[in-house]
Amino acid sequence: MPTFLGQNQYGKAENRVVKITRDGATHHIKDLNVSVSLSGDMDEVHYSGSNANVLPTDTTKNTVYAFAKEHGIESAEQFGIHLARHFVTSQEPIHRARIRIEEYAWERIETSGAGTKETGSDEQPKHSFVRQGQETRLTQITYDGESWEVVSGLKDLVVMNSTDSEFWGYVKDKYTTLPEAYDRILATQVSARWRFNWTDDGREMPDWEESYEQTRKHLLQAFAETHSLSLQQTLFQMGSRIIDHRGEIDEVRFSLPNKHHFLVDLGPFGLKNDTADGAVYLAADRPYGLIEGTVLRDGCEARIPVDLSNL
Amino acid sequence: MPTFLGQNQYGKAENRVVKITRDGATHHIKDLNVSVSLSGDMDEVHYSGSNANVLPTDTTKNTVYAFAKEHGIESAEQFGIHLARHFVTSQEPIHRARIRIEEYAWERIETSGAGTKETGSDEQPKHSFVRQGQETRLTQITYDGESWEVVSGLKDLVVMNSTDSEFWGYVKDKYTTLPEAYDRILATQVSARWRFNWTDDGREMPDWEESYEQTRKHLLQAFAETHSLSLQQTLFQMGSRIIDHRGEIDEVRFSLPNKHHFLVDLGPFGLKNDTADGAVYLAADRPYGLIEGTVLRDGCEARIPVDLSNL
Amino acid sequence: MPTFLGQNQYGKAENRVVKITRDGATHHIKDLNVSVSLSGDMDEVHYSGSNANVLPTDTTKNTVYAFAKEHGIESAEQFGIHLARHFVTSQEPIHRARIRIEEYAWERIETSGAGTKETGSDEQPKHSFVRQGQETRLTQITYDGESWEVVSGLKDLVVMNSTDSEFWGYVKDKYTTLPEAYDRILATQVSARWRFNWTDDGREMPDWEESYEQTRKHLLQAFAETHSLSLQQTLFQMGSRIIDHRGEIDEVRFSLPNKHHFLVDLGPFGLKNDTADGAVYLAADRPYGLIEGTVLRDGCEARIPVDLSNL
Amino acid sequence: MPTFLGQNQYGKAENRVVKITRDGATHHIKDLNVSVSLSGDMDEVHYSGSNANVLPTDTTKNTVYAFAKEHGIESAEQFGIHLARHFVTSQEPIHRARIRIEEYAWERIETSGAGTKETGSDEQPKHSFVRQGQETRLTQITYDGESWEVVSGLKDLVVMNSTDSEFWGYVKDKYTTLPEAYDRILATQVSARWRFNWTDDGREMPDWEESYEQTRKHLLQAFAETHSLSLQQTLFQMGSRIIDHRGEIDEVRFSLPNKHHFLVDLGPFGLKNDTADGAVYLAADRPYGLIEGTVLRDGCEARIPVDLSNL
Repeated sequence: MPTFLGQNQYGKAENRVVKITRDGATHHIKDLNVSVSLSGDMDEVHYSGSNANVLPTDTTKNTVYAFAKEHGIESAEQFGIHLARHFVTSQEPIHRARIRIEEYAWERIETSGAGTKETGSDEQPKHSFVRQGQETRLTQITYDGESWEVVSGLKDLVVMNSTDSEFWGYVKDKYTTLPEAYDRILATQVSARWRFNWTDDGREMPDWEESYEQTRKHLLQAFAETHSLSLQQTLFQMGSRIIDHRGEIDEVRFSLPNKHHFLVDLGPFGLKNDTADGAVYLAADRPYGLIEGTVLRDGCEARIPVDLSNL
Repeated sequence: MPTFLGQNQYGKAENRVVKITRDGATHHIKDLNVSVSLSGDMDEVHYSGSNANVLPTDTTKNTVYAFAKEHGIESAEQFGIHLARHFVTSQEPIHRARIRIEEYAWERIETSGAGTKETGSDEQPKHSFVRQGQETRLTQITYDGESWEVVSGLKDLVVMNSTDSEFWGYVKDKYTTLPEAYDRILATQVSARWRFNWTDDGREMPDWEESYEQTRKHLLQAFAETHSLSLQQTLFQMGSRIIDHRGEIDEVRFSLPNKHHFLVDLGPFGLKNDTADGAVYLAADRPYGLIEGTVLRDGCEARIPVDLSNL
Repeated sequence: MPTFLGQNQYGKAENRVVKITRDGATHHIKDLNVSVSLSGDMDEVHYSGSNANVLPTDTTKNTVYAFAKEHGIESAEQFGIHLARHFVTSQEPIHRARIRIEEYAWERIETSGAGTKETGSDEQPKHSFVRQGQETRLTQITYDGESWEVVSGLKDLVVMNSTDSEFWGYVKDKYTTLPEAYDRILATQVSARWRFNWTDDGREMPDWEESYEQTRKHLLQAFAETHSLSLQQTLFQMGSRIIDHRGEIDEVRFSLPNKHHFLVDLGPFGLKNDTADGAVYLAADRPYGLIEGTVLRDGCEARIPVDLSNL
Repeated sequence: MPTFLGQNQYGKAENRVVKITRDGATHHIKDLNVSVSLSGDMDEVHYSGSNANVLPTDTTKNTVYAFAKEHGIESAEQFGIHLARHFVTSQEPIHRARIRIEEYAWERIETSGAGTKETGSDEQPKHSFVRQGQETRLTQITYDGESWEVVSGLKDLVVMNSTDSEFWGYVKDKYTTLPEAYDRILATQVSARWRFNWTDDGREMPDWEESYEQTRKHLLQAFAETHSLSLQQTLFQMGSRIIDHRGEIDEVRFSLPNKHHFLVDLGPFGLKNDTADGAVYLAADRPYGLIEGTVLRDGCEARIPVDLSNL
């Protein structure tokens, strides 16, 4: 045979699991999209079609739902760790498990204070939610039976500074027509991944929920507080701020589309469009600048793959 | 010619306009997607291709941006009214204008209190925003030179009650297999439109911003506070609550996909999946129930079209 | 009660049903997305939540799958007629049924002529398909127990003429900056609906499959063969061509986004960008012109709703 | 500073360029979506915001359009090679360029044979196209000033075998409930990338257009002609078939979602649903099996990254 098999992995993707827990009349919700990917001793299923080593993807789906009941969902990271450990330790041919999870956040609906109809009591219903719809929280757990890699992050967090952004002093070649800008809008849709330095069961895990809230906060603050001469500079500030404040994180990678807001030329209509005085912008779709980069803690090696998008 | 022209309309769709206004160091943002649709004396352009009566769609786009500067964007509704009036009153062949607007909400990023780098002052930057990403606010303004129709609304507001929902006592025919439910999740992605009874320039306009905030609040509260025996019942409660509280609104229409959350059968794994005790659900995509209906103030006529979706 | 219920409808949307039929080793496929919408005596479920008149949406889903087996899927239209008749005639509270269907087309994969591995015979496998992915075919069947309305159509059919399109002689106001064009690209993503004049069971039905193929062909040919002075003119020609050739169709409505292809200004780089000599265009996303209109057979009334989109 | 910069890249993404060439009355179209990504000596723009080494992303966009005119678009691969070479050789700080291109295919509209209206001649218009809409063709060109890497491929090619697929003999653990299948539908949406062994300018390039057509053909035939015991087996057959027939390709990677078509249980309605006799399937959305793997020519190393998707 003049060909052979390279890296391969398989599993059930996008298992949409919702777990409701009740604390009296107060309910809590965890809403996840879980994708399982397994690899190991899988040559034969590719070469001959023998499934003797194959745990069906349908079984991996069942396991996700059963584990949500048996172990609960303390955090996406903790849930992914339970799953990854299970697949690697319970199935001999499986040597490596990667669990990817998207998490959708919900907030409570503030009610009118009239109580539920049945009870007429003052107690507010605590089982009503509206989906936040802002960023999607992400995590990826990889386990090979010996050590762990946890990479968390987010996508689709859209942010804008309406000033404090400039762009000038760049290279000009024969194809350059862009005028320099000293007061522009800077907007992007953040896709970020950060890698934890927790890798082995002997060490205490980070508080995954607290870590996410704090990392997100530092990311947003660095975006807001950086007077930006380039989106690359803002990227580096966001990554550095996270690593400075969060000892559990060693590496951050960003993919930042520059969501262009072009100052509209209103001259033909006898209007000035000064930024200082209520400017009007065209929010463009395509093309867009795409700025991608990794920020690392001193002494650490990069392990997050380069491509967070396929464009 | 054995054929003739029926209803027709044209214009530029999806003009993405962002207006920043500055109040000292505090910035405000309006982020709209504006679609213009004009109709009138347009037979000839269809029959012979003569554009003698046609204001180019490109011009309608320019007008959107120029008006954002000249008139500002007080609210999506007010902006649409300016535009519709302009097209109908300035162009003789145009007898009717319909302006549809989507609005995207932004909230401020809370900064760290360290001031901007340049100033070192205590003043917080007020020009940094994160897109809310929850519902999209909508409005449609129609003007025929005499009277106005304003229909506002929202889409993609995802809500869930994790209890207080039942479904039983329904018709059973030979194709019915659904078991009755006494404690289920009720979740939907609200698409709603509400029609204002403001129709002529002689009357004072509603406060469009206040109206939106209050209508949205009543919609959410009615969803949360209704112990539901069917999604239809919840729909009617949401519509009635709005009309009861908001005198400026005469009609509400909803399109409510029933986002099914199926209780997973964990019996094969020796697990019970009681709702009372941390139940696990599968959030399904398709198919979904689709419940649509109109609620009207007594004595009023329906004018919102039946179809808010194309499925 | 100061409010009352207006138009309402309900059912299961987006039932994805695939039917394979076998003619010896040759297989045939029908791939549909079926949405059911029922209305009738449904006040009580909205007012009190009583489901006594409600056939569950889950049952309507089951019926779709059972009917695909019992009656087969001769065509989307015929299948929708079976379903609509069933719901209206079998359930007393249901007075009207609307069935909407999307159909996805597949073509056969041409094989290498080597026969299947097992048989080693010369017979080609006839059970392998690739999804065409071009337009989505549509139909909507409405039945109220007495008469039928059948509206078929398509969406997402993207077409382009790379010449034979002009746009000039239009109205110029103070916001007009567009230069006239004498040789431009005309491209659009056709959304079309056409209404059949078959309305009662006493008359023979059209051949739905043949009708679709021919209508699509005339639509495409009219697009290709019209030297266009405006997209409106092309729209009218497409509609007229269909009605001229297809006696079973009385009304056609189009929603045609003008997919702008802007001639790029290469002057700054010392290049001319003549259309006569290999021109380069920027294919724009938003905004876009949106041209909508109805073409009717003489003496017929319009019944297709104005809005095929929500923008 | 306790942090440092890792891998980084930047450029303009999703430049939508359409090139029309005219051969008398016959037109040809190339429709691309071009994304540019550059890297090199870019530390300073991240650390201090100095743009002294930064060619603006806007300039990279201009270059795409200018090159489409200056060099034409013989193939996506050839066009990407021109661009990559330009950026690396013309800008000292840029050490590496990666060009990603999506290509959309168009076919001619068959006209009625009546000639255009103007000429009345028999000559058919050859400037009318309908977008094929099937797969999207892909290529990625990487150049570091010394050697080339060309990875082409496709995405969104949906294929189905309605028989000749089985799945049995797999591992069964306590979470396994799936029944074995001896005659099932196998359907997937192919995402594939293949790497060429052409790497240096001294060797003749492959015929990129011919290579794509042939590779696609072998991929489809292998899918159709493999009696499948697992999707993994089909994956390996598709990759091997390509490498066997196309000497210019050394590596193929696939990401294959298993688009499940579940045989519907019609037992409750008194119906059998045998595959041998016109079976009815439910086409499911999520979750889905996801099978990913690489096939390599003997003696070659894998260089295509593992992740073609982010789930």
